Amino acid sequence: MATVNGDSIILASASPRRREILRTIGLPFTVMPSRIEEPPYRGGSVADHVRLLAELKAAEVAQRVSARLVIGADTVVLVDDRILEKPRTEQEAVQMLQMLGGRWHRVLTGVCLIRSDPDRRRSGCEVTRVKFAPLRPDEIRWYVSTGEPMDKAGGYAIQGYGALFIERVEGDYLNVVGLPLRLVYHLAEELGFDLKRCLRPSQGGEAA
Amino acid sequence: MATVNGDSIILASASPRRREILRTIGLPFTVMPSRIEEPPYRGGSVADHVRLLAELKAAEVAQRVSARLVIGADTVVLVDDRILEKPRTEQEAVQMLQMLGGRWHRVLTGVCLIRSDPDRRRSGCEVTRVKFAPLRPDEIRWYVSTGEPMDKAGGYAIQGYGALFIERVEGDYLNVVGLPLRLVYHLAEELGFDLKRCLRPSQGGEAA
Repeated sequence: MATVNGDSIILASASPRRREILRTIGLPFTVMPSRIEEPPYRGGSVADHVRLLAELKAAEVAQRVSARLVIGADTVVLVDDRILEKPRTEQEAVQMLQMLGGRWHRVLTGVCLIRSDPDRRRSGCEVTRVKFAPLRPDEIRWYVSTGEPMDKAGGYAIQGYGALFIERVEGDYLNVVGLPLRLVYHLAEELGFDLKRCLRPSQGGEAA
Repeated sequence: MATVNGDSIILASASPRRREILRTIGLPFTVMPSRIEEPPYRGGSVADHVRLLAELKAAEVAQRVSARLVIGADTVVLVDDRILEKPRTEQEAVQMLQMLGGRWHRVLTGVCLIRSDPDRRRSGCEVTRVKFAPLRPDEIRWYVSTGEPMDKAGGYAIQGYGALFIERVEGDYLNVVGLPLRLVYHLAEELGFDLKRCLRPSQGGEAA
């Protein structure tokens, strides 16, 4: 990719939510989604699985370009031990929300950072517990009618209308949006990379 | 105020963060900060105190205008039983962050909703626990140098750079930003007011 120079930070993800999180804190970055075929989950630790996916994504992009830092991530939503994907139909969205209403679920994001030298990498997994309020049928109907659940793993967006229905969060909030920023910062530090020195003025704290 | 009609939802607060939260879910509203003299905290339940302040703010605005709904709110940050205000100097911001680093604190927001008839009101208080990562002196120096801590109760913004330093949240996240949306929605329901029917397309879930 001709537009990427060795000084860039690359987000190896097509997720608009991840992009928005990095933009909010004023991190300059380039988006370059990975081209891997995601291996399906075949049992075992889900945390290991999402971390592996994050590593595969970051590594695939890191071998294509020379960049200062590549960030890969993969998020899943777990109810008990069942993974909830993005709903493919409105009917599936309704079923997911019926399953989530009134209960706790977990959101896991694997994160992998690779510095210019491919052997210098760190990865981790962040787990956040989320409690939905009990959902009435009219609330589910309304929420699905907004279209918001359709392209979201688990069928909701905590940073959108979904906030109306979330009672509690335990852990990292941004993890539920799609990228645990604190973990990214921490892993970068372990690689000797000071993320905060790259930041431009933040929008988040200065909302007009 | 000639610009407000009886159909309006009024946010009785000057806080840019509260405005941003309501804007993100697409709620149409008018800002009209209250003119009350805030009574100082004189001991007793802090939850009762912030709820009283929210009631005073909403009531003062509700008696000046005819509106469909008035929303008042007041947020405090508590370390142990000490209230942290907005830092007045950079030195104070440094001291607050030194106090917060590596520990849990609590954020309390009192909320009061008043429907057109002043006697129909509901109020409540949301409490969220927040855990800061241990903060190094260089992190505190850098954070204060960004200016973000200066106009924030407790000296940080969880939705800004502050996110880099927050390890965990337990409870409602938006409460820490300044307005517990779920509680607002819930209190509105108790008043027979369906907030979700007022919403326009959300920005939050659709971030580009």
